[in-house]
Amino acid sequence: MLAAMLFATQLCAADIFADKRAAWMRKAEEAKPQLIFRTMKPVALVRAVADSLAYQGWRYEPEAEPAELYKATFNQRQTVTLDFGQHMVGYFGFHISERGRCQDAPVRLKFTFGEVPAELNTPFDPWKGTLNRAWMQDEVVTVTRVDQPIIIPRRLAFRYVKIELMGRCNFGFAIDSLWCRAQTSAGKVEETLLPTCPDIVRRINAVGVETLRECMQTVYEDGPKRDHRLWIGDMYLEALANRHSFRCHQMTKRCLYLFAGLSTPDGVTISNCFEEPEPHAQDVSICLPYSLLWNSSLLEYLKDTDDRETAQDLWPVAVRQVEAALKYVGDDGLFDRGRCNLWLFFDWRNGLDDYALIQGATVFALRQTYELAQMLGRESEVATYPSLIRKMTKAIRGRCYNAKRGVVESGKNRQVSVLAQTWLIKSGILSKKEGARALRTALATDGCVMPGTPYGTHYLIDAMLLCDMKQEAHDYLIDYWGGMVRKGADTYWEAYDPKDDCISPYRFHPLNSSCHAWGCTPVYFIHQYPDVFQK
Amino acid sequence: MLAAMLFATQLCAADIFADKRAAWMRKAEEAKPQLIFRTMKPVALVRAVADSLAYQGWRYEPEAEPAELYKATFNQRQTVTLDFGQHMVGYFGFHISERGRCQDAPVRLKFTFGEVPAELNTPFDPWKGTLNRAWMQDEVVTVTRVDQPIIIPRRLAFRYVKIELMGRCNFGFAIDSLWCRAQTSAGKVEETLLPTCPDIVRRINAVGVETLRECMQTVYEDGPKRDHRLWIGDMYLEALANRHSFRCHQMTKRCLYLFAGLSTPDGVTISNCFEEPEPHAQDVSICLPYSLLWNSSLLEYLKDTDDRETAQDLWPVAVRQVEAALKYVGDDGLFDRGRCNLWLFFDWRNGLDDYALIQGATVFALRQTYELAQMLGRESEVATYPSLIRKMTKAIRGRCYNAKRGVVESGKNRQVSVLAQTWLIKSGILSKKEGARALRTALATDGCVMPGTPYGTHYLIDAMLLCDMKQEAHDYLIDYWGGMVRKGADTYWEAYDPKDDCISPYRFHPLNSSCHAWGCTPVYFIHQYPDVFQK
Repeated sequence: MLAAMLFATQLCAADIFADKRAAWMRKAEEAKPQLIFRTMKPVALVRAVADSLAYQGWRYEPEAEPAELYKATFNQRQTVTLDFGQHMVGYFGFHISERGRCQDAPVRLKFTFGEVPAELNTPFDPWKGTLNRAWMQDEVVTVTRVDQPIIIPRRLAFRYVKIELMGRCNFGFAIDSLWCRAQTSAGKVEETLLPTCPDIVRRINAVGVETLRECMQTVYEDGPKRDHRLWIGDMYLEALANRHSFRCHQMTKRCLYLFAGLSTPDGVTISNCFEEPEPHAQDVSICLPYSLLWNSSLLEYLKDTDDRETAQDLWPVAVRQVEAALKYVGDDGLFDRGRCNLWLFFDWRNGLDDYALIQGATVFALRQTYELAQMLGRESEVATYPSLIRKMTKAIRGRCYNAKRGVVESGKNRQVSVLAQTWLIKSGILSKKEGARALRTALATDGCVMPGTPYGTHYLIDAMLLCDMKQEAHDYLIDYWGGMVRKGADTYWEAYDPKDDCISPYRFHPLNSSCHAWGCTPVYFIHQYPDVFQK
Repeated sequence: MLAAMLFATQLCAADIFADKRAAWMRKAEEAKPQLIFRTMKPVALVRAVADSLAYQGWRYEPEAEPAELYKATFNQRQTVTLDFGQHMVGYFGFHISERGRCQDAPVRLKFTFGEVPAELNTPFDPWKGTLNRAWMQDEVVTVTRVDQPIIIPRRLAFRYVKIELMGRCNFGFAIDSLWCRAQTSAGKVEETLLPTCPDIVRRINAVGVETLRECMQTVYEDGPKRDHRLWIGDMYLEALANRHSFRCHQMTKRCLYLFAGLSTPDGVTISNCFEEPEPHAQDVSICLPYSLLWNSSLLEYLKDTDDRETAQDLWPVAVRQVEAALKYVGDDGLFDRGRCNLWLFFDWRNGLDDYALIQGATVFALRQTYELAQMLGRESEVATYPSLIRKMTKAIRGRCYNAKRGVVESGKNRQVSVLAQTWLIKSGILSKKEGARALRTALATDGCVMPGTPYGTHYLIDAMLLCDMKQEAHDYLIDYWGGMVRKGADTYWEAYDPKDDCISPYRFHPLNSSCHAWGCTPVYFIHQYPDVFQK
């Protein structure tokens, strides 16, 4: 029995899915994908260059072949940085051999692994980040015997590794081999781009595919450097990109079942969960917009696979997510923000007002769940949804839609944010025409709150496409994701603001994950809208 | 084939022991003792107290039971020091469990292991020691899964461990178990002290026995913290103490054979050797006084065991050690210091002049080897030794013995040192009466160079006993080794000067080995001279 479930059970008398959890967890386990391993070698010794034009102020220049390191005496060199040429996730190993005199003392080496150059060139201490220092990938290793391969016992995500000799060493030694046993469960991608597809779009797509590949381990991870785990929000976007790349829908099935099996006693899905030592949810950490997106993930899964058995099996969970949100919707048809103390995450952006957004997310979930019901022949079970959608639509329009300006204004301060527009578009609360005007107005408004991450930006592009703003969607995607590509991204970053390279949700940009699943959605857009992006 | 041997072979055309090495190495392997393991637990949480009266300025006070740690939330505590109650050698492990919220990030812990309190309370960096920084026993561990036992993959020697949380941690966890899998090849000691033996002598003996126990692994190590290896000088003294404690003579046999098998192509034993990955000598690092002591070790082994087969087998090696020294002895009967660029180690004490000492060590070796020849019926092979002893005795007396003052004066600066007296006593160059006068004169001389270590001090006690200075030997031993015991030694220290707690051969006292084999000889003296120490 899982600790988190036990804990949750103590809070609540009845477990509504008591008879189903074991089977759901077993199905999750059965759908667990196999990992595929490759042994990777560094491609170059590199030199760090401080450069105000480079991403976060640092770039690497090739300096020599790795063979230069292997034959050199490292205790004279003292430090080196190696480039593996691409992002990888896995276990790092090295081997040392003697040069000249034999080893007569241990050797102390510090390894710092980084996904992007600034990560290896910004001091970690004194620690300023708001998450654990231990996320940073620096490891000190004492080598007592040089003749054995040494594997650092921590899974790493990196492209670059800096190696430093700690203190003096009395005898000669060489680091004569270095490798990474890289792992992913993602297989080959069939080429699906049109011959007409422009080069920049191909490159943007390729980086998205790499991002997804690295995050696809035995679940859809959010980021293989951090947090190493399954979040509903990331799962939703990863499954959309997976549809057009690896097509491993078994992965989506596994993740849907994990969240179902680990839901609270009253059936609400938890925002994120862990696989080890046994699958468990993160205590009772509900993020309502994510719980609602679990329904969309199930709907998209059904569309991708026609696996009605799974969808029927999980249908009761979908109903519960909607009910969990409706608990906060008053007779006036408005989500009562003041009464809800759940976490409402839409983007990492300080000061984003979520009042209009959660209303939009709830209406969107009602629509998606109703569509699911229709596909499963279960409309009768959710017969109240259509009238509720109408009521909630009317209510929020009355409260937040400034028809005169043609823009959504959220909360008491009537904040104009991009995401307030997008969620009222995605939910159908605004018409296509209203949506296009709202987005254009918001984007032209001084002080409009912009998305701070590729996650938020996904919903902007999505909304533009829903409003037939094809050229704007195209240009925004090329500008935003292409901006990362131009700045050297091998994989898409957790946080990206074209105007602020050092944006960080954690007050320390090297703590950011630079291979973050929610950045992979250009793969979805480029394939889902070929006429927009590949013409 | 061993790297060091290959290397040595390149320097020298013929390998005089080519037909014997393989058999010698096999015999060394066959005599390898089994390790005995015990799982040890900490006995107390302790608080460091800066105290100018304590050894090296630091002591620990008990603070709480270890259970206090196991049940507490470590991320609130941040740091703790544990006392295991005694010195141990082995592998350290720990276990972490969640408290409250589940683990959602790695945990970074720093462990610092120390044999003595100051070692954990003196910053290591910036590094000032003259040996590798990596000898210091601080390890940083990233824990990615809290439910598994974690073993630090480095053999440690310690009594105390300080644990520090590196950086903040967002969730509660407890270190709920800690242990050391301690190892030694030394078994039980039969009680051999007389009922009359005073308590302080019992305590001095007990610390010596513990020192030897910790150093007896699969060879006689010099120190289990540092250097982890077999040196001839340590072996000689350890075997003497072993005679009166563990009586594991197989260990001595193994070590004698290792040095024989790993000697240079012309048969000179190397000062020290390593066991892993295969036994090998430290390049060509000859320490002539140590090579000569190999002969004494063989002689004492024969006396202990009557194992004539081994002594006969190894006899040619003994002859070679003497020949190696005689190469530097001129027609005038004097060791030509200027012609010898070998390492002549007698003690760690800056400025010690070794001119008289190496002459004494050579004459002592001639005498010991002649005694060995007599026991093996091989006097005819070394028939020249007695006249050589007389010639060398006369020569050095003429050069260094100031008959008027009754003291040995070594080298151009006519340095008066304790060790110059002891080596001319041990070798029989001075008579008992002359020796006693010389030692008393030296000890009363302003600026007399004193021994800096228990190793040097061993030879002083030895010389006093040879000169029938029973009371002085008794008092000096009680004062010197008893001084370490009074200062809290669990095991004897590599370097000890009663007037300078922070003496260090490496310019940084925490780098000293605080469980060092060459300190164990009180066990030998106390038992070998019961009328002096146990009455």
